[in-house]
Amino acid sequence: MVETVWTKKKDNEGVEVHLIDQRVLPSREVFVVCRTHQEMADAIRDMVVRGAPAIGISAAFGIALGAQELESIVDPKSFLSEMEKMERVIAATRPTAVNLFWALARMKKIWAEIADEAPRYRTDALFLEAQAIKEDDIERNRKIGSFGQTLLPESATVLTHCNAGALATGGYGTALGVIRGAVEAGKKIKVYADETRPYLQGARLTAYELSEDNIPVTLITDSMAAMVMAQGKINAVIVGADRIAANGDTANKIGTYGLAVLAKEHGIPFYVAAPFSTIDPATPTGRSIPIEERSSREVTHSGEVQIAPDGISVYNPAFDVTPARYITAIITEKGVFSPEDLSHHLGQESLPNT
Amino acid sequence: MVETVWTKKKDNEGVEVHLIDQRVLPSREVFVVCRTHQEMADAIRDMVVRGAPAIGISAAFGIALGAQELESIVDPKSFLSEMEKMERVIAATRPTAVNLFWALARMKKIWAEIADEAPRYRTDALFLEAQAIKEDDIERNRKIGSFGQTLLPESATVLTHCNAGALATGGYGTALGVIRGAVEAGKKIKVYADETRPYLQGARLTAYELSEDNIPVTLITDSMAAMVMAQGKINAVIVGADRIAANGDTANKIGTYGLAVLAKEHGIPFYVAAPFSTIDPATPTGRSIPIEERSSREVTHSGEVQIAPDGISVYNPAFDVTPARYITAIITEKGVFSPEDLSHHLGQESLPNT
Repeated sequence: MVETVWTKKKDNEGVEVHLIDQRVLPSREVFVVCRTHQEMADAIRDMVVRGAPAIGISAAFGIALGAQELESIVDPKSFLSEMEKMERVIAATRPTAVNLFWALARMKKIWAEIADEAPRYRTDALFLEAQAIKEDDIERNRKIGSFGQTLLPESATVLTHCNAGALATGGYGTALGVIRGAVEAGKKIKVYADETRPYLQGARLTAYELSEDNIPVTLITDSMAAMVMAQGKINAVIVGADRIAANGDTANKIGTYGLAVLAKEHGIPFYVAAPFSTIDPATPTGRSIPIEERSSREVTHSGEVQIAPDGISVYNPAFDVTPARYITAIITEKGVFSPEDLSHHLGQESLPNT
Repeated sequence: MVETVWTKKKDNEGVEVHLIDQRVLPSREVFVVCRTHQEMADAIRDMVVRGAPAIGISAAFGIALGAQELESIVDPKSFLSEMEKMERVIAATRPTAVNLFWALARMKKIWAEIADEAPRYRTDALFLEAQAIKEDDIERNRKIGSFGQTLLPESATVLTHCNAGALATGGYGTALGVIRGAVEAGKKIKVYADETRPYLQGARLTAYELSEDNIPVTLITDSMAAMVMAQGKINAVIVGADRIAANGDTANKIGTYGLAVLAKEHGIPFYVAAPFSTIDPATPTGRSIPIEERSSREVTHSGEVQIAPDGISVYNPAFDVTPARYITAIITEKGVFSPEDLSHHLGQESLPNT
């Protein structure tokens, strides 16, 4: 399976973090090497890496790179204040995916505890924590896959949107993790992948990942989803999430909300697959989720080719919010919840991100 | 306003038919010249010209070009049999738009009547009929605009899909004709234009046409329509049609059906604007409408740029069918009908295409 983010130890120059450049897949396999927190912030903002869990993991590695930049600083106070500056740089990259802030908080807990330690120790501890976040994520995704696959019949065609796969996570994927889980359980699974304009994560990443795994996939434009549903071709819609509010409202890639409405109209179950860290108890409803707007160029150009008139006005929100009432169930590493059960669950338990 | 199809008389070589090449607009203004029925058939199939009414008009000019090719044939029987061959070539280009078959039937009525006439007379009569089809179309579109604009409030934001504008017709447009009619009536109209993958008629043609007319237009991807509806930004959805069945079910550009479902869910009126020739009494319901599937390359490539993995399976229907129950009203040159009224109307009157 394709890897999203990993480290490489260089003898004299410390640790580098490598990313596969998701902007040019699948036509080219290009790798981006980050040696500083700023390089990682740029990579996240410019979407070298994307997908809520992968953004969180990359942010954690960005913090570890930051600590490595500070090895000449011994004073704990200076270290802490520099780390907080770096945290702000990374936090400012993308506003919607809550996993980014969750990962930064988890890293902060470590750097606050070890500020008194030797510089090299601080760096090692933070790289270890980032690596743990990545490995935990893969483990969580396998659990999501294992819980989620029970929702699918022995033979099923699943529609998915954007890429909630290995490339969007530490590995294995969330929505695609459920598909992989079903395939591993011996089920016959076919996938329809929305191409997911404007960034084409479905065409470029989901179609690529599933083809590599020999899982049958048919590519459609986003506008074809309604028709394939009406034709009775789809047994379930499964998507990932960038942030789930306490009431179950879910922010995910633009186009998700429309799919959820269409699924309801056609009587098709609509599932959100995401690690528990995507649920933000501090966000009461979808109305509080900040929605990132991106450059008009993503819509007016395809690569270098202009596809719209000069100077045209463009609206380009990167995400939309699906109200909880359209969501059949949320599949997490702790089990499968209806949106209502989720809010009860949040009331009773302390969560990793509270 | 931009022109779609027109004739040019050459002193020694007869009449040419010129088309603006809609495949490369708006980045380039290229003109395609057709001198034979085959060249026109190729232009229709390859989407140099598209849009149901414009396809009908172009087909009519293709027939006139065919008659011009037959000026060495005096014998009426040979003329008739050659014309029928040419008719089959043009009829085979695109299966969904009924205006194509309607225009061919209208031309056939003329060529059958005048088969005994002198060759030059036959050619002139058929060019005159094609020109009349074009001029009638513009006149009808102005009536559609005038009836349709009464449905819009003084200040309205309209969502449209694909291009049902001047470029899709003889001129003025159907869905965009309603928008133009409202602007001419002094109403404040803003437009959201879906880009309309895979062929991008919204981004390339609708955004271009409306900008040229200084009508405010914002371009969105198809997947953003649900969000702008949920934000309360849209007062009406207006689209064109490629074929309307007797019960009001409507085939139009892929993505239309999903928009209609979304409009219903958000309580937004959903209008179809089309000349009466788009209504096919011979098609009882949407299930009888043949849906053209086009090349996978339209989805896997953007221009020359590959945007999906090699060899990926693609489903690329060019149209979908919106059941009548999602359609608030059908706007024609004879007035505004609910889909149910339309079927009553069809029962009582003889129609132009029966």
